[in-house]
Amino acid sequence: MTEQVPAGRPTLEAVAARAGVSRATASRVVNGGDGVRAHLVDKVRAAVLDLGYVPNHAARTLVTRRTGAVAVIIAEPEIRIFSDPFFSRQIRGISKELTAHDTQLVLLLVEHRGDYGRIERYLAGGHVDGALAFSLHTDDPLPAITRRIGMPTVYGGRPGWTGQADGAAPYGPLSYVDADNRGGAREAVRYLVSRGRRQIAHIAGPPDQTSATDRLDGYRDVLVDADPALIAEGDFTPAGGARAMAELLERCPDLDAVFAANDLMATGALGVLRERGRSVPGDVALVGFDDAELVAESAVPPLTTVRQDIEGMGRLMVRLLLRSLDPAQESHRVPGSVITPTSLVVRGSA
Amino acid sequence: MTEQVPAGRPTLEAVAARAGVSRATASRVVNGGDGVRAHLVDKVRAAVLDLGYVPNHAARTLVTRRTGAVAVIIAEPEIRIFSDPFFSRQIRGISKELTAHDTQLVLLLVEHRGDYGRIERYLAGGHVDGALAFSLHTDDPLPAITRRIGMPTVYGGRPGWTGQADGAAPYGPLSYVDADNRGGAREAVRYLVSRGRRQIAHIAGPPDQTSATDRLDGYRDVLVDADPALIAEGDFTPAGGARAMAELLERCPDLDAVFAANDLMATGALGVLRERGRSVPGDVALVGFDDAELVAESAVPPLTTVRQDIEGMGRLMVRLLLRSLDPAQESHRVPGSVITPTSLVVRGSA
Repeated sequence: MTEQVPAGRPTLEAVAARAGVSRATASRVVNGGDGVRAHLVDKVRAAVLDLGYVPNHAARTLVTRRTGAVAVIIAEPEIRIFSDPFFSRQIRGISKELTAHDTQLVLLLVEHRGDYGRIERYLAGGHVDGALAFSLHTDDPLPAITRRIGMPTVYGGRPGWTGQADGAAPYGPLSYVDADNRGGAREAVRYLVSRGRRQIAHIAGPPDQTSATDRLDGYRDVLVDADPALIAEGDFTPAGGARAMAELLERCPDLDAVFAANDLMATGALGVLRERGRSVPGDVALVGFDDAELVAESAVPPLTTVRQDIEGMGRLMVRLLLRSLDPAQESHRVPGSVITPTSLVVRGSA
Repeated sequence: MTEQVPAGRPTLEAVAARAGVSRATASRVVNGGDGVRAHLVDKVRAAVLDLGYVPNHAARTLVTRRTGAVAVIIAEPEIRIFSDPFFSRQIRGISKELTAHDTQLVLLLVEHRGDYGRIERYLAGGHVDGALAFSLHTDDPLPAITRRIGMPTVYGGRPGWTGQADGAAPYGPLSYVDADNRGGAREAVRYLVSRGRRQIAHIAGPPDQTSATDRLDGYRDVLVDADPALIAEGDFTPAGGARAMAELLERCPDLDAVFAANDLMATGALGVLRERGRSVPGDVALVGFDDAELVAESAVPPLTTVRQDIEGMGRLMVRLLLRSLDPAQESHRVPGSVITPTSLVVRGSA
């Protein structure tokens, strides 16, 4: 077997010669196979580093049917990805775990739904072994796409479809990692009740995301008879939180607590409360969700919030995906889903 | 020629049949070829949409030798990419321009130098047609890698190597898009001089990036005899700017102006000046660089700064790269470099 190698690029033969092993042994080490004695593995690896050898990827893919890369797809416009610390933290967890498995992270942005045609072509082109996708909205076309092209995929957050509250149908079982959004919301609202608050409002996230609807459900679990006027909708941004807070004060001037479905909306609400001369937590107690980096702790006052282990969830998504790609685990082709616990972090705002 | 198609996936034959054209005509439209009459092009495109047809990418690549994807490599840890608005704005420009050319953006993060081995494998694996790279540091291995594997690449910011101030050697001519960092810095410092400032300090960026050294050179062009004690080094972050400002006040308590090499460091400096009871611009005039989104205008007072067209530079990088990939432009294989102008934006801080 002869490799086509550009002039000057070191060959596997050169690696084998330098390491003093056979080409077959060098090949086995380079392609991650077992059965080579440890001191020979070390010699081959040293030779690879010395020569700057890069495996012929086409050949390697033929043997292992792997690209060594995983796509990360975030179903949000770039402007939200870079302004909400949730995303960078999730990517950090994913990146660390992929690096630990010597797998390349390939980030694909979805600015508009129209971008999915191009993304499908890329995914179908055999450039990645699997995909991680998060922040999907209701009826997002991605699950249908990944199923059509047979791309192993793990979702961050439970995907939701209109009229399919369990998120299972219409595409068969999906694998996802989610926080216990409903349980976390219940804990936040119960805490406000336990502090003697009686008019507890909710700033909800966008109704086309399960993280938002689950947190709203948790609020309603505790406040079964809550006045609908106490619920306003934001869009997970500070501006959306500010708008919702202004609406709530208009409709329910005697509210004494607010549970916001994320920390960014809580900071927007905080600004409006300050402008209107309402003290926090004196007049109005405020609780957020996420324990967002550089947001929750640095707010004035610091936010009481529901912490989810965002980085850990990213790592877990990678582990589930890689397990499903492991040929030794054929029986675990659909790796199942995991709900991770949340915890209330009490700070100054409530 | 027969295509291997997973069950249920529409074939090119099905597209041709639905459009009422020959397979050859359908193929020509799908693969972007010319010479098909407009009304037939429309019919084929409608059939592609109706059926959800995805071209067999492997076959398409064989014909066009293209993947329809471009890698974007940012040589900074994830934590800086998400905290400095420069990066999101550059990515926005790149993303818009790639989308306009129906080309997939593939973002690769470089957390450590050790990641480059994996990135080289991915780039060499034929998963992208070209690369855009920015925020390189001195002696970054990327130019050597892209050259070794023959990957057409355009750099954002002039790459620099120790002892190679012109950035040309040792890897032959490189293509890059850069702002006129030196000219912009000169304009900023001249402005401070024209306002009667006499002790003008400089907070420089990291000395291993040409954007930082060029801005320092611009400062020295105007203040040829500046006391070296008036120059302190930051790292392009707010914390680095704060540390540098504290140093400068220690060494030169009578300074009356500061030119910071980016807006994030200027905001850090602003905080320290406020803490020490120095009014801005009364006691100390302050000028930044970048006109960074959500930073320069919202600072208190708003920052006078040197604006560079970050989004436009991203777009320009894409245009240069795609031109070099265009087979009709074989003579322009190395697309050359472009320096874009900067402009001083005067606001409250100076």
